[in-house]
Amino acid sequence: MADPQLQLVAQRIRSFPDFPTPGVLFRDISPLLKDPNSFRAAISLLANHLKKTHGGKIDYIAGKWRVGGLDSRGFLFGPSLAQELGLGCVLIRKGGKLPGPTVSTSYTLEYGKADLEIQRDALEPGQKVVVVDDLLATGGTMRAACELLGQLRAEVLECLSVVELTSLKGREKLGAVPFFSLLQYE
Amino acid sequence: MADPQLQLVAQRIRSFPDFPTPGVLFRDISPLLKDPNSFRAAISLLANHLKKTHGGKIDYIAGKWRVGGLDSRGFLFGPSLAQELGLGCVLIRKGGKLPGPTVSTSYTLEYGKADLEIQRDALEPGQKVVVVDDLLATGGTMRAACELLGQLRAEVLECLSVVELTSLKGREKLGAVPFFSLLQYE
Repeated sequence: MADPQLQLVAQRIRSFPDFPTPGVLFRDISPLLKDPNSFRAAISLLANHLKKTHGGKIDYIAGKWRVGGLDSRGFLFGPSLAQELGLGCVLIRKGGKLPGPTVSTSYTLEYGKADLEIQRDALEPGQKVVVVDDLLATGGTMRAACELLGQLRAEVLECLSVVELTSLKGREKLGAVPFFSLLQYE
Repeated sequence: MADPQLQLVAQRIRSFPDFPTPGVLFRDISPLLKDPNSFRAAISLLANHLKKTHGGKIDYIAGKWRVGGLDSRGFLFGPSLAQELGLGCVLIRKGGKLPGPTVSTSYTLEYGKADLEIQRDALEPGQKVVVVDDLLATGGTMRAACELLGQLRAEVLECLSVVELTSLKGREKLGAVPFFSLLQYE
């Protein structure tokens, strides 16, 4: 890890054992948010990856609210990343939170089920969108987000996260959609 | 409303009657997020207000996650505002979501109770913080956030929101803490 920007990010992720349940090692992004240089580095690295990979093809960044269970650290990098790229941000939320006409999808969590929802007018058919989240674990929520965007006939160019827990093989759940993360942990 | 930046923001707030319950007029900030110029204008207006009012005195922006009931549109302006000011962002969350040592406070919602929580090491005693949220309604969550920051002996310089529902008199709940909003609706 020679990249100095990536080092700034990695230094600001800390781990807490046995949270929220015994046996789970929780990756805490609070220090990253607290240090403006590290947060800026994370946004810059994600933005540069997207510029290099997709040029000017992206229409929107989809900011995904993390929901339920282990996935609930719920931090939103979407608006900052969108601003860095001069793009708008569309909102994918837990079921029942968005007014007006929406589409929704159910997905399975470790315990039980959850719904994700997006407003029907968030995207036009054919628009190109990138989904961003703080962390990829099992990939269930990210896959549900892709399904939801598919219902609007938007094209998901790529999914991104700051942290990826590789042993959970979340990226395999995303099928043909490319996935990129800044930091990988077992 | 002559300010062109404020017009950009106001044009991107839309209303849905009877959401989430009959009789409630829901103010939807989704269009604001979707339009990068309008979102940038909102962040810029909030940042300029803080620079004018507090100069270089602020240490951190506290990004408050909206929780429960009517308050749940939950959008986070904290990281973008913090970046605009070159500050870090500390995270105030719903109870049970943050690892490590925390302090918490309970507050009353329209129906039932909720908890807010912050990590003990988020702020040192005497540090100066500004709390930002998308919308001020009854002010219960914002007041709870101030109480929580008081437990850490941080100094809340001001509370901010993009939208304020003035008929609910939320700002009166904040006591001596100054409050500022970009847009006021009845």
